[in-house]
Amino acid sequence: MNANSMLDLYKRVRQHSQTICEPLQTEDYVAQSMPDASPIRWHLAHTTWFFETFCLKQLPDYEPVHPAFEVLFNSYYNTVGEQFPRHRRGLLTRPTVREVWDYREQVDQAMLRLLARPDRETIVSDDVLRTGLNHEQQHQELMLTDLLHLFSCNPLHPVYRQDALPQSSAADALRWVEATKEQIQTIGYDPNLHGPFCFDNELPQHRVLLPTHAIANRLVTNGEYLQFIEDGGYRNPNHWLSAGWATVQAEGWNAPLYWQKRDEGWYQFTLAGLIPVDVDAPVCHISYFEADAYARWAGGRLPTEFEWEVAVRDSGSQLHDAFGSRWQWTSSDYAAYPKYNPPEGAIGEYNGKFMCGQKVLRGSSIATPDWHARLTYRNFFPPETRWQFSGIRLAKDL
Amino acid sequence: MNANSMLDLYKRVRQHSQTICEPLQTEDYVAQSMPDASPIRWHLAHTTWFFETFCLKQLPDYEPVHPAFEVLFNSYYNTVGEQFPRHRRGLLTRPTVREVWDYREQVDQAMLRLLARPDRETIVSDDVLRTGLNHEQQHQELMLTDLLHLFSCNPLHPVYRQDALPQSSAADALRWVEATKEQIQTIGYDPNLHGPFCFDNELPQHRVLLPTHAIANRLVTNGEYLQFIEDGGYRNPNHWLSAGWATVQAEGWNAPLYWQKRDEGWYQFTLAGLIPVDVDAPVCHISYFEADAYARWAGGRLPTEFEWEVAVRDSGSQLHDAFGSRWQWTSSDYAAYPKYNPPEGAIGEYNGKFMCGQKVLRGSSIATPDWHARLTYRNFFPPETRWQFSGIRLAKDL
Amino acid sequence: MNANSMLDLYKRVRQHSQTICEPLQTEDYVAQSMPDASPIRWHLAHTTWFFETFCLKQLPDYEPVHPAFEVLFNSYYNTVGEQFPRHRRGLLTRPTVREVWDYREQVDQAMLRLLARPDRETIVSDDVLRTGLNHEQQHQELMLTDLLHLFSCNPLHPVYRQDALPQSSAADALRWVEATKEQIQTIGYDPNLHGPFCFDNELPQHRVLLPTHAIANRLVTNGEYLQFIEDGGYRNPNHWLSAGWATVQAEGWNAPLYWQKRDEGWYQFTLAGLIPVDVDAPVCHISYFEADAYARWAGGRLPTEFEWEVAVRDSGSQLHDAFGSRWQWTSSDYAAYPKYNPPEGAIGEYNGKFMCGQKVLRGSSIATPDWHARLTYRNFFPPETRWQFSGIRLAKDL
Amino acid sequence: MNANSMLDLYKRVRQHSQTICEPLQTEDYVAQSMPDASPIRWHLAHTTWFFETFCLKQLPDYEPVHPAFEVLFNSYYNTVGEQFPRHRRGLLTRPTVREVWDYREQVDQAMLRLLARPDRETIVSDDVLRTGLNHEQQHQELMLTDLLHLFSCNPLHPVYRQDALPQSSAADALRWVEATKEQIQTIGYDPNLHGPFCFDNELPQHRVLLPTHAIANRLVTNGEYLQFIEDGGYRNPNHWLSAGWATVQAEGWNAPLYWQKRDEGWYQFTLAGLIPVDVDAPVCHISYFEADAYARWAGGRLPTEFEWEVAVRDSGSQLHDAFGSRWQWTSSDYAAYPKYNPPEGAIGEYNGKFMCGQKVLRGSSIATPDWHARLTYRNFFPPETRWQFSGIRLAKDL
Repeated sequence: MNANSMLDLYKRVRQHSQTICEPLQTEDYVAQSMPDASPIRWHLAHTTWFFETFCLKQLPDYEPVHPAFEVLFNSYYNTVGEQFPRHRRGLLTRPTVREVWDYREQVDQAMLRLLARPDRETIVSDDVLRTGLNHEQQHQELMLTDLLHLFSCNPLHPVYRQDALPQSSAADALRWVEATKEQIQTIGYDPNLHGPFCFDNELPQHRVLLPTHAIANRLVTNGEYLQFIEDGGYRNPNHWLSAGWATVQAEGWNAPLYWQKRDEGWYQFTLAGLIPVDVDAPVCHISYFEADAYARWAGGRLPTEFEWEVAVRDSGSQLHDAFGSRWQWTSSDYAAYPKYNPPEGAIGEYNGKFMCGQKVLRGSSIATPDWHARLTYRNFFPPETRWQFSGIRLAKDL
Repeated sequence: MNANSMLDLYKRVRQHSQTICEPLQTEDYVAQSMPDASPIRWHLAHTTWFFETFCLKQLPDYEPVHPAFEVLFNSYYNTVGEQFPRHRRGLLTRPTVREVWDYREQVDQAMLRLLARPDRETIVSDDVLRTGLNHEQQHQELMLTDLLHLFSCNPLHPVYRQDALPQSSAADALRWVEATKEQIQTIGYDPNLHGPFCFDNELPQHRVLLPTHAIANRLVTNGEYLQFIEDGGYRNPNHWLSAGWATVQAEGWNAPLYWQKRDEGWYQFTLAGLIPVDVDAPVCHISYFEADAYARWAGGRLPTEFEWEVAVRDSGSQLHDAFGSRWQWTSSDYAAYPKYNPPEGAIGEYNGKFMCGQKVLRGSSIATPDWHARLTYRNFFPPETRWQFSGIRLAKDL
Repeated sequence: MNANSMLDLYKRVRQHSQTICEPLQTEDYVAQSMPDASPIRWHLAHTTWFFETFCLKQLPDYEPVHPAFEVLFNSYYNTVGEQFPRHRRGLLTRPTVREVWDYREQVDQAMLRLLARPDRETIVSDDVLRTGLNHEQQHQELMLTDLLHLFSCNPLHPVYRQDALPQSSAADALRWVEATKEQIQTIGYDPNLHGPFCFDNELPQHRVLLPTHAIANRLVTNGEYLQFIEDGGYRNPNHWLSAGWATVQAEGWNAPLYWQKRDEGWYQFTLAGLIPVDVDAPVCHISYFEADAYARWAGGRLPTEFEWEVAVRDSGSQLHDAFGSRWQWTSSDYAAYPKYNPPEGAIGEYNGKFMCGQKVLRGSSIATPDWHARLTYRNFFPPETRWQFSGIRLAKDL
Repeated sequence: MNANSMLDLYKRVRQHSQTICEPLQTEDYVAQSMPDASPIRWHLAHTTWFFETFCLKQLPDYEPVHPAFEVLFNSYYNTVGEQFPRHRRGLLTRPTVREVWDYREQVDQAMLRLLARPDRETIVSDDVLRTGLNHEQQHQELMLTDLLHLFSCNPLHPVYRQDALPQSSAADALRWVEATKEQIQTIGYDPNLHGPFCFDNELPQHRVLLPTHAIANRLVTNGEYLQFIEDGGYRNPNHWLSAGWATVQAEGWNAPLYWQKRDEGWYQFTLAGLIPVDVDAPVCHISYFEADAYARWAGGRLPTEFEWEVAVRDSGSQLHDAFGSRWQWTSSDYAAYPKYNPPEGAIGEYNGKFMCGQKVLRGSSIATPDWHARLTYRNFFPPETRWQFSGIRLAKDL
């Protein structure tokens, strides 16, 4: 890639992490509200560690900013070495937020020098750089999801930004986009079509056989989901997977995460604070178990990730909110594509080792950074997960 | 079906549960060694409850043997009603074993009367009867797996039967059965080909697209698995799925379940007691995580359930031990076939609601009752499960 | 002691364990309903192990009945060696009940031969023998408490004996037995007064200073305790110790153990089955936390173990139900008497090492074997314990 | 009390909390390293809440600073109302540290106005004020203990202050201070002797009977404790209480908290960072279980709290380090003194409800604020607790 444009890209992405942090107090960077979430300061440091580890350490004379950071800010790369335990990240009050910003600054300076070198591509490939930037974008979305979760634990209902992530509104009539013939379709990333980058789990391109089916033109709304609640959806085991029902009972779920019932109706905690539930907005912060139970109750099912990809590719104009609204749970287990090969070395730990016990989500959400998503993008989370910006697009058999 | 032959079948299957129990002491029927396992007396009662609930209760004048048994011996059918908590089954010392046999006897008498009625098919279909019998056969295998687990907790190393479940021996050379072309293949149960019965999860028949690949002619042996152990397989995270590695560490796994190292070498606890590990026998009692890690270490992978079904169907003579030795972990997540529809009513809870977080195993094992398995049979267990008679057949990409 | 009378005593105590087991089915010997309880067959074997370990193994030529029993039936004597994990005792279906009775028989034969030897006292002292017999009596009470707990887990409400442990009835008017002067009193076992035996924790005799106080002439009744319940006793944190309130909330306590509310009123599960609560009987199966909360609610307090001992010694005729009804929780923490010295060797592990985190109970219960209790006897259990036959005698300051 | 001096006292104590915080970064105020510890910002707010709740709310026209703080900063006073869950205090990033300081400032202004009122004693008694100040002093010590624990979780070994809490050094020869006669002694707080204030648990004065005994003139040193370690003290169950041994095994203890073995010897993490263990300093950060095991190994025992109080009162000059070095574990369970009466209302929850399952510590530590301790002071913690500045003074029977 052209040196200037890669340099620009690097600056833009890195800058966006700062933009996200503007409304925060120092205290907000420190706390970890659950093992699945991380403190903001950890996200800032870990994404920086990624560039230091996978780019700067290729330079023979590079001196790491701090010898302890290799362990402190390694997430899960066993090939790189030991990791500080994930569930204890909130106990690290040092390095301070100021020192983490300094760490970012130092790494950025070194990165900018590296990116300006004419021989840069012999040291660090475009692909590794883009992986680092896409990785940071994933953490940018996580910063917002984790922050929302953290703030939701505080009875003061802190407001991140009054204008944060406005909810789309005004639901259309539900229409079904139909595939009336069994068909062989090509799935997976194509560099000629889908932009300059993909993660390894979008590869290799391969063919699948799709049965006839139909997929909904829009997402399920809060209002529709409320009907499920009011019909006793959370009290009837027949709608649920066995593991889902066990979770409903163990956790006492009776509505999406962040919903609370008040005398005057349902409210929802958001990054803009506690607000009334908008019945026209797409339902958000539900688990796979809830998406699946809702679909069964509604007489449909969730789409497979292949049905989703083909429908969005071929009938995109008819499918609203494929991107930028809610991640859409699919019925597909997160598994390797046929003949998948993870990259060599530590970066091979990025995706492949998580291909077990997770469900694929497709599309993207209001919290996803610009140009991060793409048609072939595969997000994945365990089926009980609710703190992501996740919703429902229905499908059905024909 | 012909009344006599159904009556015969019923007697034969029910009798086999008794045969399994012959070597047992009364005490052995009572204990439950872990939540996933059940006491033998519970298996005997639950399989009887199944016939009472789904067959005899269709008779307008049927008087249940004991009003409390509906709850006590219901496993997980919410449609039928409440269930006694699964992990507490070992606390029920009453009804006694004698009383459970009496329960079986009473239900059997009523069932034999029912089966002899000329109008039987108007009351209970062949399919429900066969479901009950196949259900009992599944529990017959579970009785052996659960008993082995229970006995393994006892430092006295109790012997179930000196001649129990002899290990197959003498491994052949490994050969690969190749599928050198991408192909569309039909998957799932066909009544004309696969016998008179299948479970709902084997339906509907549907077509899949298979990539080129190869599948091993035989199972992985203890000797081969020992090489993985000796090569540090249980200490190197690179071979493992992330969830698998977490399990290895949390559980301290360093060999298959029931193996123990003694000064003179590796031993294995079996239904015939503690015996030296036979290097030529197929490895047994391993989890999906271990099967997957072994395959990665060995440079291969596990087959999908579709690859397995087609290979056994089309090249069965070349594939040893497809049945009757070890269940074979596949890489397939346990999911509904396209357009799957669970039956109406309580029997609809049999399979569908477990389609989450489990992996498919194909074939059958030394503990599977005769004529229970079939080509399209789908067994399924969570990936950390080890107490089943489960092993490895390798596959690889071409 | 005279050889004949020790022999008689031995036979009588050992026989009583058999008498307790008469109403049992084989299955009832096997199950363990919680880690604090043990299977009946374990009690029978462990009390036998005690004589084998501490008496028979003094004989130079003694051959243990089974080499594995030393570990299997050791409860907690680190000095003797390893122990099979306590919470897994219910998994041992072998040795069978029949084999455990055989074990008892063989040890009894050897013990009777030993007891008949003229030189017996040079091999095993009276004190060790009496410890073994008192130890067995403690387990005889535990057999009943553990059996009650086990049966309470069974929705069939099994009856141990229709006439088991009848509840005393007809409460007297409450009267206070007063100690109107501060006084120095001697506490602890005196062989001239309290019979031929005591446990080490009743020693040494020592003097304490008692403040003025009063102690109730009788136990708190079910009827009185019901008033506490109906007054919201289980919902008001002000009555409770902090740890007690946390337990009430975590466990959802709202009545004594084994009570259940039905439409027609309160019932209580007993060894005679499920029966209506008798308002005149002393309350039973309550924890220290509940005894303490009740006392605070009633405007009194629990007695110290010293107040109890002196009151029973000096005003015994005025204090009903000191023995043979309910163990009486005292406010005393279970601690060593001044200058306490545990015996040398393994028997020194009998009491001393448990002197932490437990409360003293005094008296005895309907489940305590005859002549086991005595004035200076100190029973002890953790404050959350409810499955013992424990009740309340009030005290107050003067 | 004279208005000026109470005002002075108030300012001095409140100021000390600020002094403690001087070396801290904002981040250090937020994190909670375990449920038993609290974030610094919580300590600062809670101690302020105490004055607001128990003093300012007596003023008819007082307007609370923030309506939500009543719940957020209530520790455990059920009488006052609900409490934010203790183990989630680290999730509250708002109010920020700045806002907590503002809260303190506002409450201080109101308190200073109140303290200056001539009718102050008709509104708030000296005793309540002194309780509030002593309460804040307890939290000042907790701030240091909690901070040490938090910093100990950070592999960067943060230094609180290079000169923090220097360790006393140079052990004297061990001498025994003997009480050679049984004696009646008066225990508990006397306003004429012990200063203007005590907590309710030091009352009422009462008489106890002390046996003959001896008590050590000084604390056990690190060097002596090392001998216990090197003698296998942590590997021999015979030294330990049963609950202690279970804790040693479950937690993997092999040295005091904060000790770590390096190639060059033992190190200890302190508020001044990681430093070599000083063999002459008193051992610190040990549990009751360890103190008790050490004493048994050393052939002695721990003193009772009465022996300690009388020895320090009557032979104080001979007993080094009674105050200002290490809290000294006693063998006494934390229990009410005879005829103890907790105060009416919410302040009655201060001490009484914790009198269960805890051991008394006497004296004070290097972290205790000046003039906070006194002869009759009773500190108390559960026996497994190690993060306090706790050590050992031996006693023995005579």
